[in-house]
Amino acid sequence: MTSSYMNELQPPQKVLLGPGPSTVHPRVLQALSLPVMGHLDPTFFQVMDDVCEMLRMVFHTTNFMTVPISSTGTGAMETACANIIEPGDSMLVCRNGYFGIRLADIAERCGATVHVMDTPWGKAVDPQMLKDELKKRPGLKAVGVVHAETSTGVLSDMKELVDVIHESGALAIVDAVTSLGGHEVRMDDWGIDVCYSATQKCLGAPPGLAPISLSPAAMDVVAKRPSKVQSFYFNLKDLEAYWNQTRAYHHTSPINMTYALREALRMMMEEGQENRINRHARVAAALRAGAEALGLSLLAEEGHRLNPLTTLSIPEGIEDAKVRRALLNDYDIEIGGGLGEFAGKAWRVGLMGESARERNVFALLSALETILSKEGYEVAFGASLSAAQRTIATFDDE
Amino acid sequence: MTSSYMNELQPPQKVLLGPGPSTVHPRVLQALSLPVMGHLDPTFFQVMDDVCEMLRMVFHTTNFMTVPISSTGTGAMETACANIIEPGDSMLVCRNGYFGIRLADIAERCGATVHVMDTPWGKAVDPQMLKDELKKRPGLKAVGVVHAETSTGVLSDMKELVDVIHESGALAIVDAVTSLGGHEVRMDDWGIDVCYSATQKCLGAPPGLAPISLSPAAMDVVAKRPSKVQSFYFNLKDLEAYWNQTRAYHHTSPINMTYALREALRMMMEEGQENRINRHARVAAALRAGAEALGLSLLAEEGHRLNPLTTLSIPEGIEDAKVRRALLNDYDIEIGGGLGEFAGKAWRVGLMGESARERNVFALLSALETILSKEGYEVAFGASLSAAQRTIATFDDE
Repeated sequence: MTSSYMNELQPPQKVLLGPGPSTVHPRVLQALSLPVMGHLDPTFFQVMDDVCEMLRMVFHTTNFMTVPISSTGTGAMETACANIIEPGDSMLVCRNGYFGIRLADIAERCGATVHVMDTPWGKAVDPQMLKDELKKRPGLKAVGVVHAETSTGVLSDMKELVDVIHESGALAIVDAVTSLGGHEVRMDDWGIDVCYSATQKCLGAPPGLAPISLSPAAMDVVAKRPSKVQSFYFNLKDLEAYWNQTRAYHHTSPINMTYALREALRMMMEEGQENRINRHARVAAALRAGAEALGLSLLAEEGHRLNPLTTLSIPEGIEDAKVRRALLNDYDIEIGGGLGEFAGKAWRVGLMGESARERNVFALLSALETILSKEGYEVAFGASLSAAQRTIATFDDE
Repeated sequence: MTSSYMNELQPPQKVLLGPGPSTVHPRVLQALSLPVMGHLDPTFFQVMDDVCEMLRMVFHTTNFMTVPISSTGTGAMETACANIIEPGDSMLVCRNGYFGIRLADIAERCGATVHVMDTPWGKAVDPQMLKDELKKRPGLKAVGVVHAETSTGVLSDMKELVDVIHESGALAIVDAVTSLGGHEVRMDDWGIDVCYSATQKCLGAPPGLAPISLSPAAMDVVAKRPSKVQSFYFNLKDLEAYWNQTRAYHHTSPINMTYALREALRMMMEEGQENRINRHARVAAALRAGAEALGLSLLAEEGHRLNPLTTLSIPEGIEDAKVRRALLNDYDIEIGGGLGEFAGKAWRVGLMGESARERNVFALLSALETILSKEGYEVAFGASLSAAQRTIATFDDE
């Protein structure tokens, strides 16, 4: 008997239209495979500086402390909470999906007394509701809110929400995992105190790093806290000493992932951030039009629909896993299943970074039409495709 | 003015002879750059299974819970402590270098009452001394000890130490960051309860993942603890559900790094673990002989010298940073400076994984002879080189 590990790895090229990872451009994969150098090599310090400079442009911030955390997005969520929260602090978390729930869980593990404000899945967090809630809860250290809920496909109005949070005197911790690079995230203009994301969604790099940015005021809170941060690995004061001119060793940086992030950010700069955000908007509009023409309803409320991720209702009588398996096996197309309340009820289609291409929308809609028809669902072949095409044609006119 | 990030990244090929990262073989870099797939794609599940199967062989264990953590080695250290320690638990940490100090710091952040047993830098942890210490400290939850101290170049006798730890009833947490793949690590034979490492040293992959293994007894402690693990990201119970047949989503796995680790482990299997360990022993012996012929003394006590990492005293009157800079700039060779007590006093030369090659020993000794001579240090050209050659010639006869 031979073991599977004896085979050379030859992964097929998948079209990644799930909630992330998204497809990674060959240029980024090539950068990933460049020779390793040391984490204290001056040549690598320049790579680090390049990455920070571009991340600041993407977050629209002048915050010095804008760095990639050596983990995936969940690690950055933990970094935000572990550094800001001290034992005895209270934090309010706005929960309108799975990642809000996770944020509340993590804040609690970091020692916060956690209050939650729940919004039904599929709805955006309402600024007025938050304002009323905050009046009842004075003295909060921070309020956490998810900009783009990857579980529901909902985008909340972050500028308004941050204004409300600041009126209460709390710090605003914002999860931009699925929005950064796909929607506008203007950290300084909106006044966000702590904002984090991940590389494998709209930034177009593989999974494994998680950009975070903290305002000087937020870093001041971290610097002045009397208690130790409960995580050594995610301790921002030590990380700052590595990323600033001190270059003090903290942990061995994921060198090649940093190369890849640099290349992905360069590609974003070449395209232009506005162009990239427009591209995400255009392909998402096409997908929504096509899905509706196919009779699938959109689960995120109108006016608050995310572009990088669309949640679609699964038609009655159609078996979720079977359709996704057919897409993956027969078409090499991956889409995501529902999470939490939406498990078994929704498909999650990601059009992020390199995956946010018109050809992918056409391929997905055509494949879905074919598979659903085979499953006995009534399909007018080409109807969803032409709805998508019409949307794109019109969109170009705008 | 143009920004540096506008340039294409073209890192020179460095010879990495520092404390890690070590040089990564082109086959591993190629695997790193294969197309991304989803973290819930059945094709990726097979990659995960392959990695676990090979990691078990490297740890010499049948432990089901043998997985790479999505962080560097420090994150795995934190994973070990955060999952085993509950508030109110006591832990003893054997400190004989920088990473023992770090382990004690992390254990404390995880809520342990930490006791320390200090051994001078350059010495191995003494089993009898530990036995005496443990008699004075009943009721410890765990004892942490570093197998291979990367800061001092010392290897401790892990089998004996684990026996002593178990006599006291505590769990043995072992840091094998710099030993795994370069020295024998026999988790089951030695009875280690929790053991962790990192990819960028003797395993030969880039930095960014950290293998960990827990015995069923240790996982039972994790499973039965009434309190939540303070870290969500490093929570082993949830990670187990992703790595076992449940495949429950926890975080987006660093896909490409997992490809690279798989390929690095395959290369280890092809070479044979015993051959690889012998290779590390042979090149380390050559380096030690050459360094002594050059008049540099070895800072780790005889009989406990690490093969993957050698600490050398810096001769009086020689400027540490200047020599390392010359090695890096004129020869593209990286070695490490001293950490903690050894800062400014020691060079740390890593011969790990792909870097553990005779040609690298020859290149380093020749370059060192040249640079030190220029700095006014008395050098008999070729003396250190021939000492290294003689050692290798003899070593082959054994």
